[in-house]
Amino acid sequence: MPGSLPLNAEACWPKDVGIVALEIYFPSQYVDQAELEKYDGVDAGKYTIGLGQAKMGFCTDREDINSLCMTVVQNLMERHSLSYDCIGRLEVGTETIIDKSKSVKTNLMQLFEESGNTDIEGIDTTNACYGGTAAVFNAVNWIESSSWDGLRGTHMQHAYDFYKPDMLSEYPIVDGKLSIQCYLSALDRCYSVYRKKIYAQWQKEGNDRDFTLNDFGFMIFHSPYCKLVQKSVARMLLNDFLNDQNRDKNSIYSGLEAFGDVKLEDTYFDRDVEKAFMKASSELFNQKTKASLLVSNQNGNMYTSSVYGSLASVLAQYSPQQLAGKRIGVFSYGSGLAATLYSLKVTQDATPGSALDKIIASLCDLKSRLDSRTCVAPDVFAENMKLREDTHHLVSYIPQSSIDSLFEGTWYLVRVDEKHRRTYARRPSPNDDTLDEGVGLVHSSTATEHIPSPAKKVPRLPATAAEPEAAVISNGEH
Amino acid sequence: MPGSLPLNAEACWPKDVGIVALEIYFPSQYVDQAELEKYDGVDAGKYTIGLGQAKMGFCTDREDINSLCMTVVQNLMERHSLSYDCIGRLEVGTETIIDKSKSVKTNLMQLFEESGNTDIEGIDTTNACYGGTAAVFNAVNWIESSSWDGLRGTHMQHAYDFYKPDMLSEYPIVDGKLSIQCYLSALDRCYSVYRKKIYAQWQKEGNDRDFTLNDFGFMIFHSPYCKLVQKSVARMLLNDFLNDQNRDKNSIYSGLEAFGDVKLEDTYFDRDVEKAFMKASSELFNQKTKASLLVSNQNGNMYTSSVYGSLASVLAQYSPQQLAGKRIGVFSYGSGLAATLYSLKVTQDATPGSALDKIIASLCDLKSRLDSRTCVAPDVFAENMKLREDTHHLVSYIPQSSIDSLFEGTWYLVRVDEKHRRTYARRPSPNDDTLDEGVGLVHSSTATEHIPSPAKKVPRLPATAAEPEAAVISNGEH
Repeated sequence: MPGSLPLNAEACWPKDVGIVALEIYFPSQYVDQAELEKYDGVDAGKYTIGLGQAKMGFCTDREDINSLCMTVVQNLMERHSLSYDCIGRLEVGTETIIDKSKSVKTNLMQLFEESGNTDIEGIDTTNACYGGTAAVFNAVNWIESSSWDGLRGTHMQHAYDFYKPDMLSEYPIVDGKLSIQCYLSALDRCYSVYRKKIYAQWQKEGNDRDFTLNDFGFMIFHSPYCKLVQKSVARMLLNDFLNDQNRDKNSIYSGLEAFGDVKLEDTYFDRDVEKAFMKASSELFNQKTKASLLVSNQNGNMYTSSVYGSLASVLAQYSPQQLAGKRIGVFSYGSGLAATLYSLKVTQDATPGSALDKIIASLCDLKSRLDSRTCVAPDVFAENMKLREDTHHLVSYIPQSSIDSLFEGTWYLVRVDEKHRRTYARRPSPNDDTLDEGVGLVHSSTATEHIPSPAKKVPRLPATAAEPEAAVISNGEH
Repeated sequence: MPGSLPLNAEACWPKDVGIVALEIYFPSQYVDQAELEKYDGVDAGKYTIGLGQAKMGFCTDREDINSLCMTVVQNLMERHSLSYDCIGRLEVGTETIIDKSKSVKTNLMQLFEESGNTDIEGIDTTNACYGGTAAVFNAVNWIESSSWDGLRGTHMQHAYDFYKPDMLSEYPIVDGKLSIQCYLSALDRCYSVYRKKIYAQWQKEGNDRDFTLNDFGFMIFHSPYCKLVQKSVARMLLNDFLNDQNRDKNSIYSGLEAFGDVKLEDTYFDRDVEKAFMKASSELFNQKTKASLLVSNQNGNMYTSSVYGSLASVLAQYSPQQLAGKRIGVFSYGSGLAATLYSLKVTQDATPGSALDKIIASLCDLKSRLDSRTCVAPDVFAENMKLREDTHHLVSYIPQSSIDSLFEGTWYLVRVDEKHRRTYARRPSPNDDTLDEGVGLVHSSTATEHIPSPAKKVPRLPATAAEPEAAVISNGEH
């Protein structure tokens, strides 16, 4: 059930979700297309009739995608007298990329600073001119779903902690110290919001107690490097400690009394606090988090998939019985920045053939897969990194590396042609009956006509019907 | 109501939506971190203990973000014996951008070609390492919402019609002919799927007739240039014509008999068909589409906001009474490619003070705003474009253009510093009490602590309560 609805409210779709306001911005100068025809020396009518264009607006070097979006958002808020405090989702559909990592959405968070509202979901979404529609659909879905008031703590903020403005480089610009501070403060904020929401929910259910780390069976994190994750568990314990009115009665906090008056925002680089809380949380870390670091420890930072690699690590190392019914806390963080702390509830049924049993079984070979990899000498690794740096953006490029070292079933780049078009092929998988080559030709014709029947998708079952093919891990405590 | 549910099904959230399967891919080679410490000449333990990293996987030049995603998706499908025909949504969260326009998702559509399933929502979503979580949330919302089986025709396909692989350029690579073909075939496919879905819905309601353009009060399109939109209306009429079993009885088709046996996929560049159907559809175009081209004609291609500029154009030029209760068809297209045809239903209440009245009123100054712009000579326009080309990616850059020409209330770029960090300020708006300068400093500290109460957002009203602040334009025919 959503955190703040009365218990007896029907969990039904809101009706008639749609567009209630629309703000449009365009620049203040334009070029006349009839004049431009003359200037360009083309036939009269080429633009004005052939394209049907009378005037064309353009931006000077004073405007970029961030400024355009800030303008139109602020105009919308002002024109309709909306409160920044009431916005729960904001997503940007754009194909104007000026940073390969930091979203326009995080820049827009500058507009919300005065209100203090940072609990706003959504980032950027991209595919040419379709992005706006994707964002509209995502917004409608969000309002119709339980997410609008879901059990999540989200914190988004404009920060230049780690970003990729150099479009030719595969590497980021990083402000190391700011990055740590942003990460920890985002964790503080997200955990605080999450804790308050679940506390309110428990209150309604007649359960009057605070939420703590103990209420997570497992706690997994975005894992750029494992040490940060240990520090994160310690950080959450610090949050619990400062939140606990009766902390002197709790044995886990013994020896920490000296820190009773610290403020979170003063402690990002406080080594005494860090050391003390890492020590105090080491058992919690071992129980709830350590196993989740398998993939991160063995493979390194996987960026967007990092925290899901942590989830896979947990599922690969515990039995269905150990996982059944547990609450898994998940902290996801992206620089620039966007972060959410949410929870997954593992289903109860751990019997053979259950959905939980199946997902566990599908990951049981994770360790052996990691161990089956090939160790490469550092100098060869360095050569590979140099080769990528030098070639990743080239046209008319044929990769030099062997395909024999790839796992079976792996797709690989065959070549990049003179127009930057990429062709792929696949190393045959053990599942293949035939050699799977040559699927990789660039397709320039439309696919064979196949009109799906309107009922092609498995129809959604009404709530009163038998339990559908169940989710194994559901989205929190609705 | 969704297209294929029985009429008596309760429109409620499915329960326990979550993760039922998880596939992870990592490359087959790694470098040992203890060895790398020696090779890099750093202290022993810097990586293995300081970061907690034992091994680090890496990719050769044979793998890129497309191949990684294709591998993991195909592995997931195979390991769990999933049918490509049953997938309704696929979204990619990544911060690895190798094309500024064409999403990884469209590359993944290569995997679906054999099945013929192209009706798969979702594109890419980006903000550093948070993208995977954004995609998970969007997927959960989609399943919980009416979108899972909504009245939409979506068509996604891998194509290199228009894309931006040159990371330093603001301009795309375009295959003009392929682009037109892709656009028209996407329109054919989307309209066909949409029409079949609404036909099935009508059948269930006892309404046995085909859907045609006439059933749209307005039909708006992604509008890169106005001529294409005229051709699009003609294209939809061609679709209606070929779909009509009794076309000889319909006067709108008189004179078109010769085209009775054409196949859609043979006519993309058939000038006779184009000419004949543009003529036959000109009245439909005038009634349902022409007004939507105001912004496009006056401002040019707005990319992701193009079709919403078309929506604004309609709302700005018709009265609440003329719009109330109408069905607005919307065709959104993004190269690479992703497209959807969906519909918006305008609310019935057109009285003063109604939500419809308010949104119309908010857009009534659209024409005058467009007319208030400044006309700039072509040579000045060309200089501005050159300036942008030369400077849009520079560091330590201070824009040269005047801010005086900007509309009031417009945000603008103050400078780009030596670390690519961008600072903005705003031209005061008429609404401002005080001069709004200097908000633009780069924020490197966390915002003031503000913990929102759990009930800060307007709680979702139960379906049985009074009509909430209504959507003006709702998401189709649920």
